[in-house]
Amino acid sequence: MALSVLQEITRTPPLICFGQISEEVAKLLELKAKLGDDSQKTKFVLKCPKGTRDYNPQQMAIREGVFNTIIKCFKRHGAETIDTPVFELKETLTGKYGEDSKLIYDLKDQGGELLSLRYDLTVPFARYLAMNKIQNVKRYHIAKVYRRDNPAMTRGRFREFYQCDFDIAGQYDAMIPDAECVKLVSEILNQLDLGEYIIKINHRKVLDGMFAACGVPDDKFRGACSAVDKLDKTFWDDVRAEMIQEKGIDPIAVDKIGKYVELKGRTELIDKLLEDEAMKAQKSAVEGLEDLRVLFKYLELYGITDKVVFDLSLARGLDYYTGVIYEAILQGFAHNPKAGADGDESVSVGSVAGGGRYDGLVGMFDSKGKKVPCVGVSIGVERVFAIMESRALASNTKTRTTETEVYVVSAQKNLVEERMKICKELWDADIKTEQSYKRNPKALDQFQYCETNSIPIAIIIGGSEIEMGVVTLRIVGSREERTVQREKMVEEIKSVLANLN
Amino acid sequence: MALSVLQEITRTPPLICFGQISEEVAKLLELKAKLGDDSQKTKFVLKCPKGTRDYNPQQMAIREGVFNTIIKCFKRHGAETIDTPVFELKETLTGKYGEDSKLIYDLKDQGGELLSLRYDLTVPFARYLAMNKIQNVKRYHIAKVYRRDNPAMTRGRFREFYQCDFDIAGQYDAMIPDAECVKLVSEILNQLDLGEYIIKINHRKVLDGMFAACGVPDDKFRGACSAVDKLDKTFWDDVRAEMIQEKGIDPIAVDKIGKYVELKGRTELIDKLLEDEAMKAQKSAVEGLEDLRVLFKYLELYGITDKVVFDLSLARGLDYYTGVIYEAILQGFAHNPKAGADGDESVSVGSVAGGGRYDGLVGMFDSKGKKVPCVGVSIGVERVFAIMESRALASNTKTRTTETEVYVVSAQKNLVEERMKICKELWDADIKTEQSYKRNPKALDQFQYCETNSIPIAIIIGGSEIEMGVVTLRIVGSREERTVQREKMVEEIKSVLANLN
Repeated sequence: MALSVLQEITRTPPLICFGQISEEVAKLLELKAKLGDDSQKTKFVLKCPKGTRDYNPQQMAIREGVFNTIIKCFKRHGAETIDTPVFELKETLTGKYGEDSKLIYDLKDQGGELLSLRYDLTVPFARYLAMNKIQNVKRYHIAKVYRRDNPAMTRGRFREFYQCDFDIAGQYDAMIPDAECVKLVSEILNQLDLGEYIIKINHRKVLDGMFAACGVPDDKFRGACSAVDKLDKTFWDDVRAEMIQEKGIDPIAVDKIGKYVELKGRTELIDKLLEDEAMKAQKSAVEGLEDLRVLFKYLELYGITDKVVFDLSLARGLDYYTGVIYEAILQGFAHNPKAGADGDESVSVGSVAGGGRYDGLVGMFDSKGKKVPCVGVSIGVERVFAIMESRALASNTKTRTTETEVYVVSAQKNLVEERMKICKELWDADIKTEQSYKRNPKALDQFQYCETNSIPIAIIIGGSEIEMGVVTLRIVGSREERTVQREKMVEEIKSVLANLN
Repeated sequence: MALSVLQEITRTPPLICFGQISEEVAKLLELKAKLGDDSQKTKFVLKCPKGTRDYNPQQMAIREGVFNTIIKCFKRHGAETIDTPVFELKETLTGKYGEDSKLIYDLKDQGGELLSLRYDLTVPFARYLAMNKIQNVKRYHIAKVYRRDNPAMTRGRFREFYQCDFDIAGQYDAMIPDAECVKLVSEILNQLDLGEYIIKINHRKVLDGMFAACGVPDDKFRGACSAVDKLDKTFWDDVRAEMIQEKGIDPIAVDKIGKYVELKGRTELIDKLLEDEAMKAQKSAVEGLEDLRVLFKYLELYGITDKVVFDLSLARGLDYYTGVIYEAILQGFAHNPKAGADGDESVSVGSVAGGGRYDGLVGMFDSKGKKVPCVGVSIGVERVFAIMESRALASNTKTRTTETEVYVVSAQKNLVEERMKICKELWDADIKTEQSYKRNPKALDQFQYCETNSIPIAIIIGGSEIEMGVVTLRIVGSREERTVQREKMVEEIKSVLANLN
């Protein structure tokens, strides 16, 4: 069923969501403001900064649902949570992101320290561990990060966006925390009900060993890696050209790489590569493959062999990975190079989680270089939000944005004070209650409010109710009404609510 | 009881909390780094930016508890939530904060728009309403804001701090939403259990009327207001001097003001001022007093007359207030000018919530100046965190930072794979489970982990258990153990957990 919804979405114009609408509105507003001496009062463009957006109550309700699901999974694995400032000393971020450093937002020098907005949650986490001399922790961190990238808001790519990270820090035995991270990703994707997915797995040492086996010199590993990283959204021919022309790698080596990166499999592929003459000559490759053999054993015990694949084309660009790497792809959105379409980046929306092992990062912050091995995963929640928003639009179901249980309605004029007494009683009894903020609201408006906001119960008072010491309790859905003694009101509401739930 | 805890805190060195410790540690680290050519690897100071801090898991647990309590109150009153970007176009913030504008953090001009970090949540809210043409909404917003102020971290004053706002926007009848905001503040303070408090109430029009009645010229109202605003943390003599020397107000007028700002009361004071010759000649004062009369009537219906006081010395600095203003003060921390101590600012920690009506702000963003009247309240959650952290320290109670229910223990070597099978089964049954990340952890270490982390149940396996198809279930608190059939394990754990809760 979940899959069919995804197919539905991919058939309709892909992922047209709130993001796109507000982007278009912003453009129009900008144009309007540029035109206009006629609108003298607007001295400025009324918009969010480029690449950012507000979340309205519907979007917030969806976002909270997604976070609650994910946090539940994190807590199921015993994680704690921390928070760090939105900005760091500029030098804390320096030298951690390679080429991407140009995308870091700096703060203006207003005297004092030079600051930058955080670019991810991993570097602040490493800084936190080193600063507090923490050797072991399993923590999650959900917060916004900032990148001066070219925004593509309709595809869920923003300059301000959430990251949602889970990491295990500590000196442990091989692949035990790593396997748990992969298991956790599969739990999260199952619970979010995003349809079929596959978790691609590779290992930095296998990649390095593969490049060495193909005859790439050490100093070109990184360039080769960042070219291979593009294989999920473009074609081998383009990657091949980049390696040869931009990275200056020998075409013979590149063509050897081309054979390896086609390989996908499970334990049988690990065994095959350990038999491969070129690979088994590389110590790094053998170490990586031995790790993967253990990992796949553990993933079998965790019952998720069918959700994972060892894929030699998975590279993940970030410099700091040192071991296992993984990335989860939603099948409904996967890039299919055979489909003949040109390499439209939008299809790479399929990637919804990724991570890996980074054993060296914390040591970069320690005065003695003391390492704290880490492995973690980051959930691509912005993409999840975009999918959920599309679904909500497509299904035409209304997302409730409040939890109001009772609306207090006055059927006649001059009853605001009576309404207030009832509201007080209900609030004090912990019943979620609203009333009109007008002295004499129209009855129709009040009932309309209940229906629009899916409020289940209306408590109605008029002159006769007050005289008789009763209220009328109306079930908004069925329009069924009953008379309730004033002093039994709270009790009766609680019983009706319990029945409705 | 709650009050005695507060007294306890005030007797011990006031509010020494995590903030202070990390501040001191940061200073030491900074000094160490300045000293040191000997620590060659530290190329930089390992610290958070000035005035900011990390939240560790204990602090996060406290913070989440506080937010959950507050959000529950917001939802009880039918509020939705929104979010806005952490930065705004610089011009969006321009001209909204008067003198305090110098405290705004600007981003560096890296090409493109000029941006600033948000200074509060009210201006972004007004921008959001105007941009989306929203006429009515009741929303809360919890997020961090940024001020380049002089930090006083031990007193809970940071450069990055949370605001926690609830606002009602819409054209409604007088004092109905205003009264609900005050009621909401009292509910929140009751539920947070912070001890005795009083909510001071005043009205911008009463203040303006009072200044006029005393003979202050119109263009000096604002200066007079910002001086009066300091009365909660300093003495009248200082305020008087500021008004005369800095604000250039006639001493005769100042002395008249001095008489008024001593006045505190409830409806009888409203009546008295409506009889006051000088006040009743001022249209503005009369309008404000009539509003307050209605407000106090409603607050009586809401049952909180004993929690509120009409206090003519309450001014609240922000320019944008146009009507009722209020501020909640914790009695345990209130400033007592009679106590003879010099005006130590730390005592003003007593203020934990404040707000008021601002009918003109949204109109500043609308091209036609269309107004959307608003009233709201902001909860000073950083102060609440500081109090809660002090309490946790003082009471020596351990705050759990995880929710782990079961720890899977291996009593012998080479059982990591058996542990994994059990973990998988428990995770899949939605039981919060952890295990050691070592292949062969020591039994003692595993039990120690359970006790340190208050994990209620240990599932223990050894060779004999596996042979017999059972596990040993241990209640960590009582050390009571029982043997459970492997296939009944999940069921038995759920039943034990239900009993423990």
